[in-house]
Amino acid sequence: MAQALRLAECGLYTTQPNPRVGCVIAHGERVVGQGWHVRAGGPHAEVFALREAGENAKGATAYVTLEPCAHHGRTPPCADALVAAGVARVVIAVEDSFPQVAGRGIEKLRAAGITVDAGLMRDAAHELNIGFFSRIERKRPWVRVKLAMSLDGRTALANGESKWITGDAARADVQRWRAQSSAILTGSGTVLADNPRLTVRFAEGGDPYTAFQPPLRVIVDRQLRTPAGSHVLDGSVPTLVLHAHSAQTVDDRFQHVDCIAVPEKEDRLDLAAVLHLLAERGCNEVHLEAGPTLCGALFDAGLADELLLYVAPILLGDSARPLMHQLPLKSMQERTALSRMDEVRIGDDWRYRFRVTR
Amino acid sequence: MAQALRLAECGLYTTQPNPRVGCVIAHGERVVGQGWHVRAGGPHAEVFALREAGENAKGATAYVTLEPCAHHGRTPPCADALVAAGVARVVIAVEDSFPQVAGRGIEKLRAAGITVDAGLMRDAAHELNIGFFSRIERKRPWVRVKLAMSLDGRTALANGESKWITGDAARADVQRWRAQSSAILTGSGTVLADNPRLTVRFAEGGDPYTAFQPPLRVIVDRQLRTPAGSHVLDGSVPTLVLHAHSAQTVDDRFQHVDCIAVPEKEDRLDLAAVLHLLAERGCNEVHLEAGPTLCGALFDAGLADELLLYVAPILLGDSARPLMHQLPLKSMQERTALSRMDEVRIGDDWRYRFRVTR
Repeated sequence: MAQALRLAECGLYTTQPNPRVGCVIAHGERVVGQGWHVRAGGPHAEVFALREAGENAKGATAYVTLEPCAHHGRTPPCADALVAAGVARVVIAVEDSFPQVAGRGIEKLRAAGITVDAGLMRDAAHELNIGFFSRIERKRPWVRVKLAMSLDGRTALANGESKWITGDAARADVQRWRAQSSAILTGSGTVLADNPRLTVRFAEGGDPYTAFQPPLRVIVDRQLRTPAGSHVLDGSVPTLVLHAHSAQTVDDRFQHVDCIAVPEKEDRLDLAAVLHLLAERGCNEVHLEAGPTLCGALFDAGLADELLLYVAPILLGDSARPLMHQLPLKSMQERTALSRMDEVRIGDDWRYRFRVTR
Repeated sequence: MAQALRLAECGLYTTQPNPRVGCVIAHGERVVGQGWHVRAGGPHAEVFALREAGENAKGATAYVTLEPCAHHGRTPPCADALVAAGVARVVIAVEDSFPQVAGRGIEKLRAAGITVDAGLMRDAAHELNIGFFSRIERKRPWVRVKLAMSLDGRTALANGESKWITGDAARADVQRWRAQSSAILTGSGTVLADNPRLTVRFAEGGDPYTAFQPPLRVIVDRQLRTPAGSHVLDGSVPTLVLHAHSAQTVDDRFQHVDCIAVPEKEDRLDLAAVLHLLAERGCNEVHLEAGPTLCGALFDAGLADELLLYVAPILLGDSARPLMHQLPLKSMQERTALSRMDEVRIGDDWRYRFRVTR
């Protein structure tokens, strides 16, 4: 199963909106087939592995990181393929909560007399597709908030200067996180201040993944303040501008992008509605690179799931800009508690990953 | 020498104002005598080691972490004792910059025909007595600024609540740093807000070091605002209240403490003068536990040497209090750069140590 998970990870940047899945077919220690899901519309992991195994699949055990599908989607059901190939046992890491699967894959296999066990390395398998499970189960994407700050929690000088807090290596690392996300979200304030491209730039210059699809660029821009000529409006990648119903969209600025009206809530776009819309468009992981207002609003609304934080060993002082604008706390009990996932040094900086636990 | 350094570290909490020194006397691999300096006025490391070695010191090599003294202080010169004992070779980690030693110990040994080598593990030996060297060479103590903050760089809520940002383990760790310092420095603002004791509380409740002397408590209180009944005025440990010449000290509040007037500079006490005064009183390491104003002023004045930072995995938001009040920066070039010394997890928190490099 560890090998199947490694295979699944090969699809980290390319399976969107599908989950990342790997499959290993073996007789005892002898592996006869391996595969992973590469891209939506293409064969599932099981199909690649069964093709490689051929006749050797008979009586074998198939290790699959996600419950095999039982429905006709863009490809035929993998459960049927496993039955047809004559495998004797299927070991599944995590059940699929996708409504058209949700246990039916397992049922189908068992009905065919195949032994099925589920739960081997479940946590790792769940983690690999945390965005997919979030979209299916919570009807919203997994939201990862990326921030870069000085040691004293500042993201820019008072005059707005923020280039650069962190070093080259940390900034290159960010590209990987952008690449594995379904959408890169920002606010119009960041567009106005920094005019970012919000595209994925791979370190080597080129795109090493032939199946790679650039993440959707999403601009939260209630009043449509994004200026003409902004990089995000250049149409180089699919882009969505979300605005209030009251905003006027008949405008040359937006000819290369999609504009969608979203309900408002308390003087800003309803962020829950924004995320629901992105989930409906198949977004699993949303990567947020925004300013203190949008980041703080997401945290205050309880919609931030993960904090990807780059910290530079510098002090910028208390006149510099804060990490996030959040609602004032009345007591220590109200504080946002985070649980640590991992930490790593990148050049002179650190990268921390936290889950929001409150 | 590594063993001599370990011995020297045994004096971490007790040698003040003297340096921490260890000594090992050996014939090849065979150790015949070991010692460390325990307390000022007591025997030096070499004396303990020579006593243990006895006749075996003849022809032996002595490893000493600091150049042996050449002058009659409260004890006779160690260089003479080494000569008298007949050691053949002395290996020194770091030269003593104390004016009455400063190379004369080495000269005396060489004059007596002893082979002397210096520089083995010099960095570690210097580090162990960084406060002592600072006091002697820079005429000011080594200033270690202790701060505890949330991940977003906040030390208290807007309402002042700060109990507690970090966990029990981190707070217990602070006691060790207090214990190894010569003075614990704070400002009157912190006294007013938190009424701290600024004493050393060892984890076990008792003091495991019989030679331990509590660090001097120092309150920077320009206008003598420290209220009657404050813990820092209780006389339980030696305490110094530093104030402006203009402040009135004839006051019952201060009967258990020493009040000293210090020059002012730009509407606050001249911090360079404060540190000079502490150096003259034999302070090697100063441990600062103060609010954002005093901490920021020390950093802005370039008088902070080290940052001892405890970070809790929580967010308090931008209405909470900042780490330090510092002068605004006009460009990224002006930022305070820090170099990392060590980092460790303590309970749910982290502890970082940085040197100020700008």
